[in-house]
Amino acid sequence: MNLREVGEDRLLNQLLSRLPLGKTVVAGAGDDCAVLEFFAGRNFLVLKTDCIVEGVHFLWEANPVDVGWKAMMRPLSDFAATSALPQFALITLIASKQTEVEWVKKLYRGVRRGAKRFDVSIVGGETSSSPGPIAISVSVAGFVEKERWVSRRGGKVGDDLFVTGQLGGAVKQKHLRFIPRIAESRWLTKNFSIHAMMDLSDGLGVDLPRLARASKVGFKIEMENLPLAHGARIEDAISEGEDYELLFAISRRDRERLKQAWRKKFPKVPLTRIGQFSPLSTSNSQLLRSGYVHFQ
Amino acid sequence: MNLREVGEDRLLNQLLSRLPLGKTVVAGAGDDCAVLEFFAGRNFLVLKTDCIVEGVHFLWEANPVDVGWKAMMRPLSDFAATSALPQFALITLIASKQTEVEWVKKLYRGVRRGAKRFDVSIVGGETSSSPGPIAISVSVAGFVEKERWVSRRGGKVGDDLFVTGQLGGAVKQKHLRFIPRIAESRWLTKNFSIHAMMDLSDGLGVDLPRLARASKVGFKIEMENLPLAHGARIEDAISEGEDYELLFAISRRDRERLKQAWRKKFPKVPLTRIGQFSPLSTSNSQLLRSGYVHFQ
Repeated sequence: MNLREVGEDRLLNQLLSRLPLGKTVVAGAGDDCAVLEFFAGRNFLVLKTDCIVEGVHFLWEANPVDVGWKAMMRPLSDFAATSALPQFALITLIASKQTEVEWVKKLYRGVRRGAKRFDVSIVGGETSSSPGPIAISVSVAGFVEKERWVSRRGGKVGDDLFVTGQLGGAVKQKHLRFIPRIAESRWLTKNFSIHAMMDLSDGLGVDLPRLARASKVGFKIEMENLPLAHGARIEDAISEGEDYELLFAISRRDRERLKQAWRKKFPKVPLTRIGQFSPLSTSNSQLLRSGYVHFQ
Repeated sequence: MNLREVGEDRLLNQLLSRLPLGKTVVAGAGDDCAVLEFFAGRNFLVLKTDCIVEGVHFLWEANPVDVGWKAMMRPLSDFAATSALPQFALITLIASKQTEVEWVKKLYRGVRRGAKRFDVSIVGGETSSSPGPIAISVSVAGFVEKERWVSRRGGKVGDDLFVTGQLGGAVKQKHLRFIPRIAESRWLTKNFSIHAMMDLSDGLGVDLPRLARASKVGFKIEMENLPLAHGARIEDAISEGEDYELLFAISRRDRERLKQAWRKKFPKVPLTRIGQFSPLSTSNSQLLRSGYVHFQ
């Protein structure tokens, strides 16, 4: 059975009736807007939208449960980068009327699983028909305590640069199964002053220059220290993307305390110092700027 | 010049640098998430996402400024239905790399114009490439005072049913230029107790049964009283959709006071009583259920 046969309204009702809803959801899917309790107080409201497209971010042959998971996780990775907690999500599915209902149900299973994993309530969504490739757009709202918000802009010359996990090789499999570093990010801002942070989605070679530019500094990377995933080369770590690891800047004074506390708290997740922020004009930023690197 | 030639990052930077930003925007487009001041207090957080697709909601020949306007206005019409005030928007554009930059710039001009008209700050967005038709997804966040929130669920047997404006004929032109009834909706909830409300996007024949179902009542419509747009027939008013007018239920005790005050406040916008909510089992709901009507 495909989307045309089942009817969009009926399918949405089926899918949305199984959504996990938190206590702060006053009205979820089914009314004109989602209506929510939000405790502002000392918090900022945080918003992010992200979209994945068939043939670009996933292949048709991919398991739709994984595709749904990835669609949900990508904006959550930006929440990790901001040290924010996600609360509410809206899901937009653009698909042709020939799409099999089974495929769509599996997609939503992945979306739901991801939402549940991070206590996110799915509070609305819609399905639009299109003759083109399938696209899934996810918008997420949540909060961050004002004193714990981290942007890309606060890096200082001399700051240590750290990355979580391992880089490279994600495109082969991990990109559909990754877990946003929200727990790690929240722990970091609870225990340390993080100057600048982002998540690595386009590859270190593209993303690190963005972080440096936003902080108005240069950088020096120790290539030999990059934490490579099994089978990945330095070039993969720099240019492949889809790692969804955290890259952050922190005062070098915190270096040893951070390393020790991290090992205790997250023994299975590597944390690696890969270099430091430097004055604007110095730095090997030219090497990385275009997303790949020529070794000297 | 098309999207491939100009580069997505550069274009986004150009487009996003011209966005109107309110004072409550702490971090807008350019960082991982949008970060915003939100005054909760006695307010609910309100979220809505909506998507328009080329060939479904607009034709390729349409003026891109109009397309951008419509993309922005559709979720705002849901805010009107909820009596909420929109504050922040995220824009997702899915387009092929062959799309002309000029077209995209005009699209954003329409989006910006719409956002400005309703004091909405565009705080983020992204562009995804796709070989398929163009799609624009807009997510909006805002608030409604707890005591002014209107859902679809509060209608009571005996309530009068009113619609704003005129119905039918919108598909020909108006649907690309419509103005969401936010001012009218806010005035209504400031001065009256509105029991249930929605915006008419799919046609009275589909939308009214939804409102009645949500309120667990039936309805009786006086067909001869439907406010028809110039040249529209009753069937158009019932089944065409894209009117984006308000449909609401209010106690009959307020009928005369509402009519008089409305005429004074909105002399150019018709307000028409089209019928009433009735007990569940009675009603001509069967007539309307499928989106068109057989006249007796």
